[in-house]
Amino acid sequence: MKKKIIIINGPNLNLLGSREKNIYGNNSLEDIKDRSITKASELNLDCSFYQTNNEGDLITYIQSAESKYDGLIINPAAFTHTSIAILDALRALSIPKIEIHLSNIYTREEYRKKSITSEGVNGLICGFGAISYILGIEAISKLIYNK
Amino acid sequence: MKKKIIIINGPNLNLLGSREKNIYGNNSLEDIKDRSITKASELNLDCSFYQTNNEGDLITYIQSAESKYDGLIINPAAFTHTSIAILDALRALSIPKIEIHLSNIYTREEYRKKSITSEGVNGLICGFGAISYILGIEAISKLIYNK
Amino acid sequence: MKKKIIIINGPNLNLLGSREKNIYGNNSLEDIKDRSITKASELNLDCSFYQTNNEGDLITYIQSAESKYDGLIINPAAFTHTSIAILDALRALSIPKIEIHLSNIYTREEYRKKSITSEGVNGLICGFGAISYILGIEAISKLIYNK
Amino acid sequence: MKKKIIIINGPNLNLLGSREKNIYGNNSLEDIKDRSITKASELNLDCSFYQTNNEGDLITYIQSAESKYDGLIINPAAFTHTSIAILDALRALSIPKIEIHLSNIYTREEYRKKSITSEGVNGLICGFGAISYILGIEAISKLIYNK
Amino acid sequence: MKKKIIIINGPNLNLLGSREKNIYGNNSLEDIKDRSITKASELNLDCSFYQTNNEGDLITYIQSAESKYDGLIINPAAFTHTSIAILDALRALSIPKIEIHLSNIYTREEYRKKSITSEGVNGLICGFGAISYILGIEAISKLIYNK
Amino acid sequence: MKKKIIIINGPNLNLLGSREKNIYGNNSLEDIKDRSITKASELNLDCSFYQTNNEGDLITYIQSAESKYDGLIINPAAFTHTSIAILDALRALSIPKIEIHLSNIYTREEYRKKSITSEGVNGLICGFGAISYILGIEAISKLIYNK
Amino acid sequence: MKKKIIIINGPNLNLLGSREKNIYGNNSLEDIKDRSITKASELNLDCSFYQTNNEGDLITYIQSAESKYDGLIINPAAFTHTSIAILDALRALSIPKIEIHLSNIYTREEYRKKSITSEGVNGLICGFGAISYILGIEAISKLIYNK
Amino acid sequence: MKKKIIIINGPNLNLLGSREKNIYGNNSLEDIKDRSITKASELNLDCSFYQTNNEGDLITYIQSAESKYDGLIINPAAFTHTSIAILDALRALSIPKIEIHLSNIYTREEYRKKSITSEGVNGLICGFGAISYILGIEAISKLIYNK
Amino acid sequence: MKKKIIIINGPNLNLLGSREKNIYGNNSLEDIKDRSITKASELNLDCSFYQTNNEGDLITYIQSAESKYDGLIINPAAFTHTSIAILDALRALSIPKIEIHLSNIYTREEYRKKSITSEGVNGLICGFGAISYILGIEAISKLIYNK
Amino acid sequence: MKKKIIIINGPNLNLLGSREKNIYGNNSLEDIKDRSITKASELNLDCSFYQTNNEGDLITYIQSAESKYDGLIINPAAFTHTSIAILDALRALSIPKIEIHLSNIYTREEYRKKSITSEGVNGLICGFGAISYILGIEAISKLIYNK
Amino acid sequence: MKKKIIIINGPNLNLLGSREKNIYGNNSLEDIKDRSITKASELNLDCSFYQTNNEGDLITYIQSAESKYDGLIINPAAFTHTSIAILDALRALSIPKIEIHLSNIYTREEYRKKSITSEGVNGLICGFGAISYILGIEAISKLIYNK
Amino acid sequence: MKKKIIIINGPNLNLLGSREKNIYGNNSLEDIKDRSITKASELNLDCSFYQTNNEGDLITYIQSAESKYDGLIINPAAFTHTSIAILDALRALSIPKIEIHLSNIYTREEYRKKSITSEGVNGLICGFGAISYILGIEAISKLIYNK
Repeated sequence: MKKKIIIINGPNLNLLGSREKNIYGNNSLEDIKDRSITKASELNLDCSFYQTNNEGDLITYIQSAESKYDGLIINPAAFTHTSIAILDALRALSIPKIEIHLSNIYTREEYRKKSITSEGVNGLICGFGAISYILGIEAISKLIYNK
Repeated sequence: MKKKIIIINGPNLNLLGSREKNIYGNNSLEDIKDRSITKASELNLDCSFYQTNNEGDLITYIQSAESKYDGLIINPAAFTHTSIAILDALRALSIPKIEIHLSNIYTREEYRKKSITSEGVNGLICGFGAISYILGIEAISKLIYNK
Repeated sequence: MKKKIIIINGPNLNLLGSREKNIYGNNSLEDIKDRSITKASELNLDCSFYQTNNEGDLITYIQSAESKYDGLIINPAAFTHTSIAILDALRALSIPKIEIHLSNIYTREEYRKKSITSEGVNGLICGFGAISYILGIEAISKLIYNK
Repeated sequence: MKKKIIIINGPNLNLLGSREKNIYGNNSLEDIKDRSITKASELNLDCSFYQTNNEGDLITYIQSAESKYDGLIINPAAFTHTSIAILDALRALSIPKIEIHLSNIYTREEYRKKSITSEGVNGLICGFGAISYILGIEAISKLIYNK
Repeated sequence: MKKKIIIINGPNLNLLGSREKNIYGNNSLEDIKDRSITKASELNLDCSFYQTNNEGDLITYIQSAESKYDGLIINPAAFTHTSIAILDALRALSIPKIEIHLSNIYTREEYRKKSITSEGVNGLICGFGAISYILGIEAISKLIYNK
Repeated sequence: MKKKIIIINGPNLNLLGSREKNIYGNNSLEDIKDRSITKASELNLDCSFYQTNNEGDLITYIQSAESKYDGLIINPAAFTHTSIAILDALRALSIPKIEIHLSNIYTREEYRKKSITSEGVNGLICGFGAISYILGIEAISKLIYNK
Repeated sequence: MKKKIIIINGPNLNLLGSREKNIYGNNSLEDIKDRSITKASELNLDCSFYQTNNEGDLITYIQSAESKYDGLIINPAAFTHTSIAILDALRALSIPKIEIHLSNIYTREEYRKKSITSEGVNGLICGFGAISYILGIEAISKLIYNK
Repeated sequence: MKKKIIIINGPNLNLLGSREKNIYGNNSLEDIKDRSITKASELNLDCSFYQTNNEGDLITYIQSAESKYDGLIINPAAFTHTSIAILDALRALSIPKIEIHLSNIYTREEYRKKSITSEGVNGLICGFGAISYILGIEAISKLIYNK
Repeated sequence: MKKKIIIINGPNLNLLGSREKNIYGNNSLEDIKDRSITKASELNLDCSFYQTNNEGDLITYIQSAESKYDGLIINPAAFTHTSIAILDALRALSIPKIEIHLSNIYTREEYRKKSITSEGVNGLICGFGAISYILGIEAISKLIYNK
Repeated sequence: MKKKIIIINGPNLNLLGSREKNIYGNNSLEDIKDRSITKASELNLDCSFYQTNNEGDLITYIQSAESKYDGLIINPAAFTHTSIAILDALRALSIPKIEIHLSNIYTREEYRKKSITSEGVNGLICGFGAISYILGIEAISKLIYNK
Repeated sequence: MKKKIIIINGPNLNLLGSREKNIYGNNSLEDIKDRSITKASELNLDCSFYQTNNEGDLITYIQSAESKYDGLIINPAAFTHTSIAILDALRALSIPKIEIHLSNIYTREEYRKKSITSEGVNGLICGFGAISYILGIEAISKLIYNK
Repeated sequence: MKKKIIIINGPNLNLLGSREKNIYGNNSLEDIKDRSITKASELNLDCSFYQTNNEGDLITYIQSAESKYDGLIINPAAFTHTSIAILDALRALSIPKIEIHLSNIYTREEYRKKSITSEGVNGLICGFGAISYILGIEAISKLIYNK
């Protein structure tokens, strides 16, 4: 039977592709969702995909992943740098979990170089634009099937 | 045709006029809403007015302003000092946008002197109590009609 | 007539007892709720009990306490260290209010030693596991009835 | 009888319109003076207008405002971030007083995000270019006539 | 047989009730001692009570508690914020140990928000005035008898 | 014709697999080299692989990559946190370049959370043990062939 | 022959006695000047007395003291906390030199606790209101005549 | 009847005159005591004089001054920079109180520029060697008799 | 026709040669002026030379250089470390501009290692005593004639 | 004649061997005393040995060493990180003086990495458990007899 | 006989002229070497010129300069901001020594504003591109021949 | 059979005895080597002795010690304060390891008070000049033979 993964996207990621393309690229989140589901399928994974601007909803998604999914990929967006609550939710989660970012957070503003949530995941992938999602799915696949 | 603006109010601003009057004055948010709509109307602006305690809702309001309004005024209240997610939403918005505060944030606690969201707006008005809203409407009117 | 209190629990506390038991103990939040209601009853208090992962909801609960309860106990969990908005809500509240924590925040990560919300309450109790709730109810009882 | 206001401009503002137009716009200080006097007149205010590169002169202007004017508007320019002496002068002044800036100080260098003088004024308006002066005059008018 | 506890009070607490009543209340330390002994007795505890202005004496009291008492309550007063030596003594102690404060340290000067000694105790209770002692005795009783 | 990549490893990585296995895993650097060459070959890439304890040599390897390789993967190890010189070399390099780490640097000592070299690469992958290398090769392949 | 001293007063001290009396007392600078001259005369000293709001003028007064006076007393007011240039002038001065303040700078805002100019004087007297001047004259007299 | 004052000296001041004369001068503490008693007598004050190396004893001396003396002069020596407990004792004292230092603390090590105890006194005199004591007695005399 | 340069000297530089010779050397500012004019003449430059203790005057000199000179050399002395206003004036200046210092600011006090004004010039020369002026003239000559 | 040394031990060192053995080892302070006296004797030194929890007593011991001993070894324990008063006492001491620690202070909590007292001694030995004392005696012997 | 100087260049300077021309200009290091040798020759100096990416080699070059050269010019590049070891080598060198930089380090990233090596040289020249080398040679010539 | 130890010396230690004798003493490194070998021999240890200015070489020496020596003594010199790479190498080493310094790092510049490498050794000895080496050999001998 296929393993299941969830990809959770944080605040403002629903704007992808329509604005600030110099930083985030031309792909819409819908495009990324499609490419992610296709890629996951190739790796024998069933992929759910959500976006929310709400920190509390992100926490609830993470909590619910424990019983419903075999792996979690999160792009916490701006909450990366401020949310201890998301970190706590990630820490409490026992399935494989990966943080991804579209941009390289080290080439941006000073306050984006500090990450709080990254302490709660297995690994981190950032800076590859939409490809960060594809690499994240490859990585979670390895953590789920090979580990 | 009349241009449209939106005024968004952050956490605890629904308490205005009933508590901590020494800091925030005697006006209720309802009073401010009425005065704002009247003032906007004088300047040929149609004014919507919202309040929420929820950061995610503030972000969604800001995002939706892109297609529905010609100008945005925000009083992010306590989120001013902590929310990179609201800053990101403001940055992504291409219409004129103004941040206002009832009190002068520089005469209060040390942690209120640091602003994160202000980086995402055209201009800032603070310290005039309810009049900050009136000045904000004047300012947005100038940015919309004269620029 | 019985006085009424409300106990509000912040993000991830719904996970109590199922995970990270070495830090938070074996009690589920449901157990703690039952023990709290029993204890409150012994002290002639009617006890309501909520949990949410959402900062905005916490603020709304705190605001609503003004007219509906005689005392408030809050465990803001991770928001303790980051939320000025919750602090503002607590400050605006005129009834007795107490902050509690299951663990001793001084024996954990550096960023948990800084508290923002504690500035807005009468007193603080932390480090006693589920007993922190019992002591919190004793304390609020004294503040309500004896003061 | 007409009320009187004074607008004081700090170091380098005499250069406006001739250099660094990308930050400060095309208006010369002379233009701004003319527009300010006109606007003040519409609001029944008599407007004096000065510029100096000298911190000591700024302090002396502020001190003299006590007996000669009904309201003060100051653009302290670079002294905003360094001068406790100007702050002290502003604090000692009992008439309405407003700080304005042409640019949004939050979108510039890190050391411009810290303001020292703002602690000494009623309110702050920044980021609207020459319009900051117009809004400042509207604001001082409200503080003088309506308060 | 009755269990025994010791309550140790740090510098300047002997002045309670005679000075700075707005912060520390009207109770003298003698009153608090009486109420503590009564409360302890109700909970089947034998209560010793000391005060000293001397850091070295506080350390020696803490050390001696190992063999002579079943629980320790300490109000380190100003040493809370500066004494690693008291922290070391508390850490070396294997019986239940609780830190209490009369005032809420988070609502006072910046340097009182940093606690050094709290790292060495089971739990912390602060902000309830003389009631902090009563709650401390309840707490230590639970740690001694129920744990 | 096959594209060529270079993988450069910083100080102490030659010790992999023989010591501190709890942090770095059981794989020797030789194992990782073999797996990397195999993976690269599958993706039609010719893979060179070096290790050095010497900062100057790392810089020289990076510089030489400009003319000899189509992509670079670097694990700067401890130099990640201290070397502006390596950052400068990476910045000057115009081919695709990726930084990888075996461990998640955010779950380790405070001084490992600060990265200096990451500012000079396209993207970052960390926390997947030896799999970080495999993901790095997948990523560089995408940057070389698809971009 | 009588020795000569100079007392130099920094920005805003000309406002003494007319405003902010709760901090600076009821004495005008003119009163203080009179009392200083009288006191100096009793101690066989000829006393000159100046005030300026201008940092450059303060420096020039200090420089000129070298050849014209036997001792210098300075109240640098707000420049105490910011002026390295005044410090340099004081350091270059070889006659006895004393810094005085009306208020105790340690009981005021955080940024007034840091002194830059004090490094350049023999001694410091602060917190005695107008009496600080009298004590300063006593001190300078001892340094001039007895040392 | 003569008013009474107490002069309290902190750690290592008993070494005065025998060692580190370049910093502290040639006077022994005994000399200073004699000069102080003589000076006090001239000003109609009865002067007690103590030294201790013990922080707890200093606190106890300060506390006892409330009922037994009309004014207090303290040289807290090294405790100036570290003791919140002494600050608390000074704050609780209602009689006139002055802090003195032999050397100018601003011309010494960085950690001596920060003063904790100074927040608890009326005024501060430092940098005049043994004369600091004489000036302190003059000052306390003025605070006791003239105020 | 000869190009014209201006050399501006900040606070206390008029004292050169008479005091603190161990740091600043034996040359008076008059000597340096003579040597500068001679050197400039050799390089076909007409050299004006000013000194002021006043920050405002320095700003005005810098502003006036735009239309009257072809190059500017400034020794801001103590203002180097504190004046954003001078930085702003330098930034607004479009002719070649160089900052010089007599001493090597990195071998002096900690607060002299931070430079604010240097951000506004083309280049910096420091540590060569009076020769810094000669080198500055050589440098400005190259910037004016060769660039 | 035999030279004499004194070994002084700070707070909580009397607990050695009975608690926290993982950090401080199994030796009691009595064992260490015996081994120290034996070792000293072998090196022709007469060894006195004290322990106190009291900072003031430590200072007094250090002061008295000047006339009574030829060398001093101190383990200031927790006071290492906080006591400027002990540093002052050590600085005033002209005989050879060594600081020792049982544990390597660099492998412990962040606040133990900062040492204040070490500035006042000739040399430092730490991390060898009870052997630190033996090495300290060897070192002081060399300083006393060979220097 | 001709005096001899050595010019040492740090990491990545071998890339000059081929990449990042907007910061470092169009000159290759070879060009700069040629111009330096020519300039040195004009000033009667024999000029050696080296580049290395290796910190250890830089130190060895500096050490060897003591006996072989009469003056040293160093461009430590990125090591400027991190290397205490190079600072130590420079300090130990008794011949004249100058630090140069192509770019003005104050107009670049925050971490380039802090210099460690500059403490070890006589003087500093930066911001003139290749001309910094020419000025450096002029300066060293003056230090060698005129001093 | 004799046990073997290695003593590794970092950058600039080859200069010992020829320069900066006031800090490092008159001994050359050759003298220290001879004394170390003699001392080691007395303690039945075979002693190898190296010096390098190169961080990478130091790391390689440390790595090689694992299989070839029974104990390591390192004087990392300036790398003490900056090299995480050396720390990593030391941590990976399982034989006894000691850090030594000639001078007392606490009596020197601020940046020498922070040690990075010390976290990776068993113990630390500093401040005894050449005797630090002798004590280090005694210490390593005890760790090798007695532990």
